Amino acid sequence: MNFELLARDGRARRGRLGLVRGAVETPAFMPVGTYGTVKAMTPEELKGLGAQIVLGNTFHLMLRPGPEVIAAHGGLHRFMNWPGPILTDSGGFQVWSLAELRKLTEEGVRFRSPVNGDPVLLTPESSIAVQTALDADIVMVFDECTPYPASEPVARNSMELSARWAARSRVEFDRLGNANALFGIVQGGLDPELRGASTRFIAALPCDGICIGGLAGDETPEQRDAALDVAVPLLADDPRPRYLMGLGSPADLLEAVHRGVDLFDSVLPARVARNGQLWIPGGRLNLRNRAFLDDAAPVQEDCPCLLCRRYSRAYLAHLFRAKELLAYRLATCHNLTFTLDFMARIRASIRAGTFPADMTDLRSRAGRVSGGEVAEQSA
Amino acid sequence: MNFELLARDGRARRGRLGLVRGAVETPAFMPVGTYGTVKAMTPEELKGLGAQIVLGNTFHLMLRPGPEVIAAHGGLHRFMNWPGPILTDSGGFQVWSLAELRKLTEEGVRFRSPVNGDPVLLTPESSIAVQTALDADIVMVFDECTPYPASEPVARNSMELSARWAARSRVEFDRLGNANALFGIVQGGLDPELRGASTRFIAALPCDGICIGGLAGDETPEQRDAALDVAVPLLADDPRPRYLMGLGSPADLLEAVHRGVDLFDSVLPARVARNGQLWIPGGRLNLRNRAFLDDAAPVQEDCPCLLCRRYSRAYLAHLFRAKELLAYRLATCHNLTFTLDFMARIRASIRAGTFPADMTDLRSRAGRVSGGEVAEQSA
Repeated sequence: MNFELLARDGRARRGRLGLVRGAVETPAFMPVGTYGTVKAMTPEELKGLGAQIVLGNTFHLMLRPGPEVIAAHGGLHRFMNWPGPILTDSGGFQVWSLAELRKLTEEGVRFRSPVNGDPVLLTPESSIAVQTALDADIVMVFDECTPYPASEPVARNSMELSARWAARSRVEFDRLGNANALFGIVQGGLDPELRGASTRFIAALPCDGICIGGLAGDETPEQRDAALDVAVPLLADDPRPRYLMGLGSPADLLEAVHRGVDLFDSVLPARVARNGQLWIPGGRLNLRNRAFLDDAAPVQEDCPCLLCRRYSRAYLAHLFRAKELLAYRLATCHNLTFTLDFMARIRASIRAGTFPADMTDLRSRAGRVSGGEVAEQSA
Repeated sequence: MNFELLARDGRARRGRLGLVRGAVETPAFMPVGTYGTVKAMTPEELKGLGAQIVLGNTFHLMLRPGPEVIAAHGGLHRFMNWPGPILTDSGGFQVWSLAELRKLTEEGVRFRSPVNGDPVLLTPESSIAVQTALDADIVMVFDECTPYPASEPVARNSMELSARWAARSRVEFDRLGNANALFGIVQGGLDPELRGASTRFIAALPCDGICIGGLAGDETPEQRDAALDVAVPLLADDPRPRYLMGLGSPADLLEAVHRGVDLFDSVLPARVARNGQLWIPGGRLNLRNRAFLDDAAPVQEDCPCLLCRRYSRAYLAHLFRAKELLAYRLATCHNLTFTLDFMARIRASIRAGTFPADMTDLRSRAGRVSGGEVAEQSA
């Protein structure tokens, strides 16, 4: 893997991530394929929308269908028919989400499989082994997500555990002879001192990219910005790509790019699409609203996606009412198109050197409000 | 509409239905788009699989989104983005399925909408009006489905009511100036005398095609064959296309073509696909079977569909276990490909004049057993 910086505009960066299976123009958004499929979409469609890399979930794929099945197919790419780059998470976030159903020790996390109740032990070593079996182009170190809110001692212990797990992940990655890329993960919660200490530790770890973790949860946008304002300056001269896990609303993506982040992933655009929320410039449409049932206009006039080129709001609203499978597919297609197009606009703006001036227009297109909430528009 | 007979082989016929929106090579199978969408598929995909015409359900579309919404889009074709021919049923079968929730009179059928509880009256006139608003290329007369089993007086009354409704449908079709095609529907249950009387009545009705109704329900294949053996000979010199509503298993389609039927529709291939039943030459695979979870072979070796070209049985079995939307789409794609390809083989065989000799091979490919049940194969 190599990462080439093509342009800078303030803290924002325009780059190119070179991977064996393809290049990723950054800042980039990665659609999430939890179970080896971006819900409702084919890989051919994703590529057509401009997706350059997708994310797979180690936790979910480890439990179902299991790494041995995927390895027998020659890796996740062939299993899911996506020949481009894949980044896998470490499973740390999902085991953290199990809350009291998990038991945390220095060794790792013990829990019962939500699929079949079997006892499972996930450690830095087993996480790296699974990601190696999946043949992920970018592997993440195993980390512990710091709860929010957290007292200083809790946040410190968590951050220090993640640091030790990151080091163990690195050792196991090398021991397995994995030739792909490995990213470290900065934790430290919202405490500037801990966030800074974690950033310095991970920056010192020999790895190919730096993930800024624990920042797409329940914190406010201001708290998130503050944490980025601690971490990114410490990495100012670091040539490696920076990845913020779990951000997905256009407004959030924009602000994080503005603060120097290069890579993103989130289920948000697809999840809200399946619920009838369609993103358009300046806001969103809720297609479950009765007002759309006789609206013959397209969801977004100038959008090149399959939904907007071929179908009306009335048709999509009807499909949602009838719980037709095509609704989820067309809506997902649109929101991913909107998100990937938004990232392309950001990239063009940074490359042109007009990013600060373009922020007003980009914020307006994103619907301004962050945290996944954008202004709802009527029919 | 015109119907050209290109070849005959025994009773089997190879024809071409000429419609303003496109030709339909017969014998033909029509995928069903109940709510203005063939579940999980786009029209572009359907066309790619070889679908020439699709069916829309008057009853469902009348209740949701309503004929006025579809008419405001310029008809069902533009609403659902299928530019090819569409046949609509009359709603008779669906109101019959409501059983004790409907009230039948000479005028029509009163029932409460299953969608919102509103009282609805469906008559020959209102059915034709809805189908006209949808701009169906082929409109069906409104009929009453004869229950099975039925006593002679019940079957006779039902058949005679359907005959009067067919005549009223014809009058309303003309009164509305509908320039598309109208098909009559033969009823009469399993009684040879009533089936014959109904056939003669409908054959005498000025209409563009003849549907043989009430034969894809709970009767045995032998009873169905016997009813066809009454109706088809009475239509031997009739140049109009013959349509058997509701048949869908390859074995059933084959036997009905053998007895002189030209057109078919059914939800069966798509419905069983969504349940994990994949049709292959000689039988079927149940992808919910654990045995497929590590089977890296394609569902069907020589199949050109998206599923078989790109994915393994293990991947599809995994998608079904994870309840992923892509499972329903890929499985539907395959079963419709299998069914449409099977019809193309039948057409080629009739055209070549080798149909009787090919029946053994075709029965073997269909999995022999009729009634939707074919031999299940293991991994």
